[in-house]
Amino acid sequence: MLELKHLPVSSFNENIAYIHRDCPVYKIDNIKTMTRIEIHGGSEPVYAFLQIVDSSKILRPDELGLNTEAFKQIGLPEGSKVSLTLTPPAPSLTSVRRKIAGNILSTEEYSAIIADISARRYSNMDIASFLVAAGSFITPGELLSLAEALRGDRIIDWGSEEIVADHYCLGDVPGNKADLILTAIVAAYGLPIPKTVSPSLNGSTSAADTMAMLAGIDLDVRSLKKQVQEKRGAIVNLEKLEIAPADKIITMVEQQNGLATLERSIASVLATKMAAGVTHLLIDIPVGPRTRVRSTQEAMRLRKLIEYVGDMMDINVDVVITDGSEPIGFGIGAALEARDVMKVLKNKEDAPEDLKEKSLFLAGRILEFDPKLRGGQGYVVARELLKSGKALDAMEQIIKAQGKAKEQMQLGHLTRDIVADTDGVVKKIDNAFISRLAVLCGSGQYPGAGVDLFRKTGDKVTAGDILYRIYSCNQNDFAFASTVLENGRSGFDIGK
Amino acid sequence: MLELKHLPVSSFNENIAYIHRDCPVYKIDNIKTMTRIEIHGGSEPVYAFLQIVDSSKILRPDELGLNTEAFKQIGLPEGSKVSLTLTPPAPSLTSVRRKIAGNILSTEEYSAIIADISARRYSNMDIASFLVAAGSFITPGELLSLAEALRGDRIIDWGSEEIVADHYCLGDVPGNKADLILTAIVAAYGLPIPKTVSPSLNGSTSAADTMAMLAGIDLDVRSLKKQVQEKRGAIVNLEKLEIAPADKIITMVEQQNGLATLERSIASVLATKMAAGVTHLLIDIPVGPRTRVRSTQEAMRLRKLIEYVGDMMDINVDVVITDGSEPIGFGIGAALEARDVMKVLKNKEDAPEDLKEKSLFLAGRILEFDPKLRGGQGYVVARELLKSGKALDAMEQIIKAQGKAKEQMQLGHLTRDIVADTDGVVKKIDNAFISRLAVLCGSGQYPGAGVDLFRKTGDKVTAGDILYRIYSCNQNDFAFASTVLENGRSGFDIGK
Repeated sequence: MLELKHLPVSSFNENIAYIHRDCPVYKIDNIKTMTRIEIHGGSEPVYAFLQIVDSSKILRPDELGLNTEAFKQIGLPEGSKVSLTLTPPAPSLTSVRRKIAGNILSTEEYSAIIADISARRYSNMDIASFLVAAGSFITPGELLSLAEALRGDRIIDWGSEEIVADHYCLGDVPGNKADLILTAIVAAYGLPIPKTVSPSLNGSTSAADTMAMLAGIDLDVRSLKKQVQEKRGAIVNLEKLEIAPADKIITMVEQQNGLATLERSIASVLATKMAAGVTHLLIDIPVGPRTRVRSTQEAMRLRKLIEYVGDMMDINVDVVITDGSEPIGFGIGAALEARDVMKVLKNKEDAPEDLKEKSLFLAGRILEFDPKLRGGQGYVVARELLKSGKALDAMEQIIKAQGKAKEQMQLGHLTRDIVADTDGVVKKIDNAFISRLAVLCGSGQYPGAGVDLFRKTGDKVTAGDILYRIYSCNQNDFAFASTVLENGRSGFDIGK
Repeated sequence: MLELKHLPVSSFNENIAYIHRDCPVYKIDNIKTMTRIEIHGGSEPVYAFLQIVDSSKILRPDELGLNTEAFKQIGLPEGSKVSLTLTPPAPSLTSVRRKIAGNILSTEEYSAIIADISARRYSNMDIASFLVAAGSFITPGELLSLAEALRGDRIIDWGSEEIVADHYCLGDVPGNKADLILTAIVAAYGLPIPKTVSPSLNGSTSAADTMAMLAGIDLDVRSLKKQVQEKRGAIVNLEKLEIAPADKIITMVEQQNGLATLERSIASVLATKMAAGVTHLLIDIPVGPRTRVRSTQEAMRLRKLIEYVGDMMDINVDVVITDGSEPIGFGIGAALEARDVMKVLKNKEDAPEDLKEKSLFLAGRILEFDPKLRGGQGYVVARELLKSGKALDAMEQIIKAQGKAKEQMQLGHLTRDIVADTDGVVKKIDNAFISRLAVLCGSGQYPGAGVDLFRKTGDKVTAGDILYRIYSCNQNDFAFASTVLENGRSGFDIGK
């Protein structure tokens, strides 16, 4: 038996167990490679990967150290007596190898893989292997198996609600935060919409980052249910809800590796939305030369795939294919986007028209999930809810219920204006360029960083007009972003 | 600037950097996922993956901790001032993604991937992704690019030697340690043979484990060169030679994941043998129902592939396809195999005939690399060198030069005999069963554990005769192995 010790190290995914090289219980000389162990003593065995400590200052020979992830999982106080046994690689890794060899896996095999991932029996390496293998070839039937396995058994129960709505956008369009506006409209209408959003891990701004500018987003399932019952809407952090645990683990590996395939994203969104108890889901696939989906043909293929898997899983899905060729709204970056969102909700004259229209279109589609609404009326009703201020009211109630954000929205203090070098009309704005520029400004790390567009496609400009302004919160980011701009590129195509 | 500290943790592959959550230099709140950093202060930047420490007992806020792997690489004393910057994922990961998408990569792309792996810019996840992607489809041209990249630039120089020989066996046959015997024969003949072997990481016994029963195997390049110059032969641990560094890193990931493909093994063996300065290489492909290569057709495909890559890399390869259907020799496990090897070299009457014949056959093929030797004479010469005691003498000199093993060969104290339950003739021995049994006995961890065969295929047996004996060094392993035997299976097929 060893004495449990918490080594407060966060490793971002894996359970790590530390033992001293002179551990009297386990003979270290025999450890030549990453070793998988099972720790006994808690209510259930905890799986972890072994690392060797050579200093008694960090860990005594009679102690077993656990990193923060594993310590949380074992749920025992420090000093508890625990034992460890070597454990073979997760049995379902055989299926991963079968997938690598090009086989079609069964529903049972996907269940076993996902169960082992949830139990943290897969190393990040193992998960990456699975993702690459499944990413290179997966049948619609397999995708269904994967989505069902990811959903898991713990599904949020919305009681007597017949429709629980949500929306997901497959692929980033810079600036687009229609998510927040449509949630307010749908809630104002009275349909329950427990919108789940995820903090971005890849540098661009997510709806979670933007909402965090306005309100707290870390609710648990109980608070979420109470809020939606009372206010009809919520915009909350998926990470903090205890549902679909394997999906979170896999998503983190994907983000670290940039390995997300569209198929995996489809399985992930259907699984997590269903685990959140959503019955009616609108999926927006923006198509553009620099978005995740580049052609209408590809979007159509994905639509069919989503419809197939959705139907088989018994969730109502409505898939819309939209234009993702240019940024939507003026601001790119959490604070700027939150400003745009509130301008639209407040019916300000200088609110971005494209963001407003996109939000109304999507909200209208969701409203039409309601059988009581006459076909084609969704958009009109949505517009009325926005115009009358009811959507703003709904958002204010959501913000109040979730708790107003503590920090004030503050834009980065380092700014630079990029101006037109000629007269003309904006013909095109390069999505990818603007998006990358925002990341360089620090938008993924600092909410106040980003790009604010003063002109959009179709606007007339005179030489010297400001096209956009960049904001950074520190010199490093600002210098990086400036370098990109120094060579004369602006991402704007100005013609006659 | 932060103060360098060594956190003596061995993580078996990855460079890990630790910073305190309250680190004044880097804003931890913004770390949401695995973060790649570059550490400056040493002669070259060191890449590492960041983990967060929440206790000042382990690390002060103004310190940067490095695990043992990274600390070794940076080569600075503790307390040195270092700085860190965020670093993007290794640029060559773009090529990995291209490979995942099914593209054929260029020679330059393979070079870049391997260079980044050597520089430890790839996480284990990244390496696993690369292996799975390249494992599912790789062209002969790509395999050549991969092998060349893995070989690297540091090649052991054997001066005026025209022939430097070695041998490799693609796929384990339990008990087969012809490696050691053929090395002694070739050295006795006078051809230089710096045999590189790798400790097994997967539970079965490798030639390195067996040689370690007889002598030290951890030589550096200088000692290796001196020894081969004087004694003509050596059997040394590849891991300890500073050549082909990326191959070692990749191999460790493969072993942890069980992802090694035959193609990757071919690239690995050609690369490492060439880096060791080998000019003439014999590759043995055993074919059997339970070996890595299951059919002669598959073996032939691999032979052509090896010949193509070998020719393009300018190494002389001779590929032989042999029978791998049954164990070779009597013992399976390091100590038992070392005993068998010495029996053959000493021309003992009870030496295993199959091991002797296999060794002579392979040694003969290597001897025929010598242009002075008349075609077809290799086997005869090898037999003469063995019979005359010259091979034994060569082995004894090799052992003396490398340093006699400190510990005595000692077999496990827990034994059990498995006896024939009927009269008859041994028709077949199940390779896989015996191999797994040896692993369960503890052969991968304890040199004294294993299986000793008393009867081989073709032998007559009477009910009650001992078929084999198992040896374990601890109760746990012994109990495991016994369970497998309890249900009446012996792995022996006895017929009339």
